[in-house]
Amino acid sequence: VTAGLKKTEEPDLGLIFSDREATAAGVFTSNRVKAAPVLLSREHIREGRARAIIANAGNANACTGPDGLGNAQKTAEIVAENLGIGVRDVLVASTGVIGAPLNMARILPAVPKLARSLTPDGLSDVAGAIMTTDKFPKVSGFKGESGGKPFHIAGMAKGAGMIMPDLATMLCFLLTDIRMDHADLQASLRGSVGRTFNRITVDGDTSTNDTVLILANGMAENPPLAEADRRVFRRGLTRVMDDLATMIVADGEGATKVVDIVLKGAASPEDALKAARTIANSALVKTAFYGQDPNWGRIMAAVGRSGVSMTEERVDIWVNDVHVVEGGLGRGSQAETGAAEQMKEKRFAVTVDLHRGSHEERVKTCDLTREYVGINADYRT
Amino acid sequence: VTAGLKKTEEPDLGLIFSDREATAAGVFTSNRVKAAPVLLSREHIREGRARAIIANAGNANACTGPDGLGNAQKTAEIVAENLGIGVRDVLVASTGVIGAPLNMARILPAVPKLARSLTPDGLSDVAGAIMTTDKFPKVSGFKGESGGKPFHIAGMAKGAGMIMPDLATMLCFLLTDIRMDHADLQASLRGSVGRTFNRITVDGDTSTNDTVLILANGMAENPPLAEADRRVFRRGLTRVMDDLATMIVADGEGATKVVDIVLKGAASPEDALKAARTIANSALVKTAFYGQDPNWGRIMAAVGRSGVSMTEERVDIWVNDVHVVEGGLGRGSQAETGAAEQMKEKRFAVTVDLHRGSHEERVKTCDLTREYVGINADYRT
Repeated sequence: VTAGLKKTEEPDLGLIFSDREATAAGVFTSNRVKAAPVLLSREHIREGRARAIIANAGNANACTGPDGLGNAQKTAEIVAENLGIGVRDVLVASTGVIGAPLNMARILPAVPKLARSLTPDGLSDVAGAIMTTDKFPKVSGFKGESGGKPFHIAGMAKGAGMIMPDLATMLCFLLTDIRMDHADLQASLRGSVGRTFNRITVDGDTSTNDTVLILANGMAENPPLAEADRRVFRRGLTRVMDDLATMIVADGEGATKVVDIVLKGAASPEDALKAARTIANSALVKTAFYGQDPNWGRIMAAVGRSGVSMTEERVDIWVNDVHVVEGGLGRGSQAETGAAEQMKEKRFAVTVDLHRGSHEERVKTCDLTREYVGINADYRT
Repeated sequence: VTAGLKKTEEPDLGLIFSDREATAAGVFTSNRVKAAPVLLSREHIREGRARAIIANAGNANACTGPDGLGNAQKTAEIVAENLGIGVRDVLVASTGVIGAPLNMARILPAVPKLARSLTPDGLSDVAGAIMTTDKFPKVSGFKGESGGKPFHIAGMAKGAGMIMPDLATMLCFLLTDIRMDHADLQASLRGSVGRTFNRITVDGDTSTNDTVLILANGMAENPPLAEADRRVFRRGLTRVMDDLATMIVADGEGATKVVDIVLKGAASPEDALKAARTIANSALVKTAFYGQDPNWGRIMAAVGRSGVSMTEERVDIWVNDVHVVEGGLGRGSQAETGAAEQMKEKRFAVTVDLHRGSHEERVKTCDLTREYVGINADYRT
């Protein structure tokens, strides 16, 4: 529904409700400044159970002190009342402007309407209601089988700016009917977050509101999970989250391209991630992506300043299959022309091989455009 | 002179020559990828003496392998020949595009012309010849007295992009007539670099070519330095370098504003610098500066993700003298309007007090504008 928290008339308040009590797990921002809904949901999810998620866009309810926490609490209370469930079964998430008080006069009267309008196919409505600078809603799904019983995973996410998740991304809600205990669910979620949302960046800024939540209500009636079942579930979960993470990068503020940075041959996993992230966050590299310019010197400079173990003379770089740098040296104008051709695509990969070891990491990033600057210079005005 | 290394007809080759043998010191990039002229100059300066600096713009001679090193060596040789000095007395510096071979066919014939055109007031000519995306030449000077003898410091620098010096900045040449031994000169240079060039950022990218060189030829005829004299010299040197460092930020690619980030009350010096740098490099903070928007939530988020010891509820933020955040909370729309007013200036300060300790650091940064993106998307095309 539209409660009136955004500057536009767009929907800004969404509600997710499970018919049954569900096992719940969550991963939250690593930013030391944590929004009120993060603090509240982290507390509510402690017992590993939940039935509802209420999420608003337009206001992050971050840096709002005790009043902000009180407002998150009041929101959970009114939702619990309208759904006839316990207040600790309600998780709260917010996204939008930091530092402004949440307009409770608009949220409280909207909740009964929201509760009445719950529908089994409302998934994309919620995905729409949590958008801020996003240009499209992000949903994904997976269908698997566990102990002979079919199960489903549905996921939705939002995020376009302040994106370099450390433990989680802006907002992501995952719903599954699988039957699974809390510890298993939490471990699955954490594992998938590490491979998906923790491997994307839009602008190198980690949000105060990052939240990934999963509810598993067991309606698939599957027997206790065997190791093979667990693998199927985790693979499905990672696939859904990777889909959503990629959509966030594609919808990065002002972005026109998604670029997979593949860092190979690093001396350690830490080096691989550090070098990949330094390339993925370099303003000079990202503007060159925008300009479709295979300016590999900027990639070399980024790897060089990242502090990882490397020898300039061993570095190889490819743009898709075009080999542009060999042994630290450019392979000439024909290779560059070929690489520039690849960079016209909306999605391409840049592979850097350090030839120092066997470790590899992948980070997804987008280009840095004039529009990014426009969006963020004028965000609040 | 114009050798023809830039796309324009602008001067691109400069020469500095000391009438006498000079004590020399240098600080070079910490990037693991080091340009050929950095490798050569680091080697030549080892004995602490030099008489000439040759610098070109338009080509960085970086990522150019053994050929690049050979070209830097050839450049030093032809300069030495034309000036009648030893080849190890010549220091070489380059700036411009990474990964392209240096056009020696243009440099070699230009050197004799360059040697003939040496003049005592050519300082700003050299400052002009080393410009790339710079919009103005950067020169500064200082006059002091040492043991009753007047001495002088003259400095010039270039740099506008790929600027987050770690040990030095793009290019900076300092000339003084003071008489000082090498160890003293090197210590003075390193101390001043730490307080000036290591405290600025334009885009968080550290160049492969960063070089700061100083020549002290002793023509001031001062007696051996007393401790008080040394202090006067170091103060003067820091002032000249601070001037030049500030000019680099003011001339940051696409920049319209210089912002002093003052980080107070940190638990350690490392925390103070880390938090200040995270704020100074945040794309979201820098676009808000451009938009003249006192979006303090982004500053809180940047400090929060920097990983420093902090308590949200203790943080205070000012824009110049306008107190916008108190105890982690916004002080309302009047304060924000006042802060927005201050942000219309071309230079202002953002002060963040963590109230966790007594350590303070300052970092100078600029805003992130549409023009920055334009410059860097189209740099090589």
